[in-house]
Amino acid sequence: MTVLAVDVGGTKLAAAVWAGALGEVTRSPTGTDPWTALTELLDPLVAGVAGIGVGCGGPMAWPAGAVSPLNIPAWRGGFPLRDRLAERYGVPVRLHNDAACAAVGEHWQGGWGTDHLLGMVVSTGVGGGLVIGGRLVDGAGGNAGHVGHIVVDPLGPPCPCGGRGCLEAIARGPAIVAWAAGQGCTAGTGVELAELAAHGDRVALQAFAQAGRALGVGIASAAALLDVEVVAVGGGISQVPALWPTLRRTLREHARLSFLGELRVEPAALGPTAGLVGAAALLVAGDRYWSPSRAGAVEG
Amino acid sequence: MTVLAVDVGGTKLAAAVWAGALGEVTRSPTGTDPWTALTELLDPLVAGVAGIGVGCGGPMAWPAGAVSPLNIPAWRGGFPLRDRLAERYGVPVRLHNDAACAAVGEHWQGGWGTDHLLGMVVSTGVGGGLVIGGRLVDGAGGNAGHVGHIVVDPLGPPCPCGGRGCLEAIARGPAIVAWAAGQGCTAGTGVELAELAAHGDRVALQAFAQAGRALGVGIASAAALLDVEVVAVGGGISQVPALWPTLRRTLREHARLSFLGELRVEPAALGPTAGLVGAAALLVAGDRYWSPSRAGAVEG
Repeated sequence: MTVLAVDVGGTKLAAAVWAGALGEVTRSPTGTDPWTALTELLDPLVAGVAGIGVGCGGPMAWPAGAVSPLNIPAWRGGFPLRDRLAERYGVPVRLHNDAACAAVGEHWQGGWGTDHLLGMVVSTGVGGGLVIGGRLVDGAGGNAGHVGHIVVDPLGPPCPCGGRGCLEAIARGPAIVAWAAGQGCTAGTGVELAELAAHGDRVALQAFAQAGRALGVGIASAAALLDVEVVAVGGGISQVPALWPTLRRTLREHARLSFLGELRVEPAALGPTAGLVGAAALLVAGDRYWSPSRAGAVEG
Repeated sequence: MTVLAVDVGGTKLAAAVWAGALGEVTRSPTGTDPWTALTELLDPLVAGVAGIGVGCGGPMAWPAGAVSPLNIPAWRGGFPLRDRLAERYGVPVRLHNDAACAAVGEHWQGGWGTDHLLGMVVSTGVGGGLVIGGRLVDGAGGNAGHVGHIVVDPLGPPCPCGGRGCLEAIARGPAIVAWAAGQGCTAGTGVELAELAAHGDRVALQAFAQAGRALGVGIASAAALLDVEVVAVGGGISQVPALWPTLRRTLREHARLSFLGELRVEPAALGPTAGLVGAAALLVAGDRYWSPSRAGAVEG
């Protein structure tokens, strides 16, 4: 089965054809007119595919696929992405949370050897997806897995969601950069800040260490609630080494229940393509990863 | 199908026969020799039952049913409760986390009208159970639902689990009483403290308000991760009215994602019998609530 896999993020769009394996990935910036950018990306790729699988930033109305991503201002009021794609390309379209797709990709092709996995994406936002008993957990409305909105510091900074002290408010890339800027650091992006950290800049190291602590707290909480065996952490920020020592130390301090003793928390196996692989799986391995009817919802 | 339902808690043991509905409940203190107390309770009730369903404090080796409850010191090193009961009474025994049983009870008989429910028990400890898509979520080792070990304050008080700042470290009955004692309050138990709060005692009111805030934070985190529609909060502490205003206010502050707008957080419908009803359901409605094979484990 040949399908088109699409990943719609706050910063980048990506797409690739899946035909037994992931083909070459094409990328473009999301920009301020994401629909135009997306169709320019997909038009040349869509010929001959049997369907389109899409991962997109949440929240969303699911499985209908009307999205209102926190990190895509142009669509924040709601955009019928699934319908618009189905209309334009005339093939079945299945759309899910981007981080749910990344978790599916890690479970399906990541070689973890477990059926109980939390997948996380630490990037412009902090998202997640739950695979429990070998199946993607959708939740009541398709929004299960919002690990970025676990509260890790009740008096912490405001979050894009309107809350306070969420994991995402502390550990997403822009929040790390903003914290460093407040300490006088001149890095304008996560990549620049990571570069500084790699060269031993004290503020940059502190900034990632702080994000690592927040991630350790959030992962300890999620693992206690879910009894997963693996947490696979992807997204650009997860690739910064300075994040991991405090993440692991904080996790050890907080994840003390006996059943958490064997918990593996590791960088995602598939890297930045996990979301695309998972988006393909919504169609190619839908028996395990696409179940609107089990969630009590009507197939869109 | 007539079964015996058993609830093994840190403070109390309870048992009742289920025959289409829950019969009269017999109770006794757990004490320092819980096995003797339990068999004295069950011996007169077991005649003619087709099986025994047991809820017990976690963690445990599941589905084998060897328990090591944080709140039962005599068994904390591990006790083969399922095997011992099966041996003594010669009928099938199914054992799960007590709070998982309470969640099952609420889902099965609580009339909530949802298939996405987090059940919580706030008592000597703070436990929980997850029903997602109409089925009990076991997790990799049967320990899913440990909502009491969501970290609500990373620098908070030590927890019985060995961690710090867990919801349970702040909101379990003994922690609330200990906090009040530190403020000069003379109440020795949660019941006495609740009595003082009912009469307007300022320290008692503060003690429960603080627990309510911790519960609001923990519930906001769990609901974001799980996308549940209902959180049913049971256990003795949940019946104290002074808990609820801060719980609801804190929840409103933190649970801001759009899909959490309709979340219902309410006192458990079945009260203290939820765990017994759920323990019966492990046998009577095992198709939805007993699935060691789906969790990848061997039936005990």
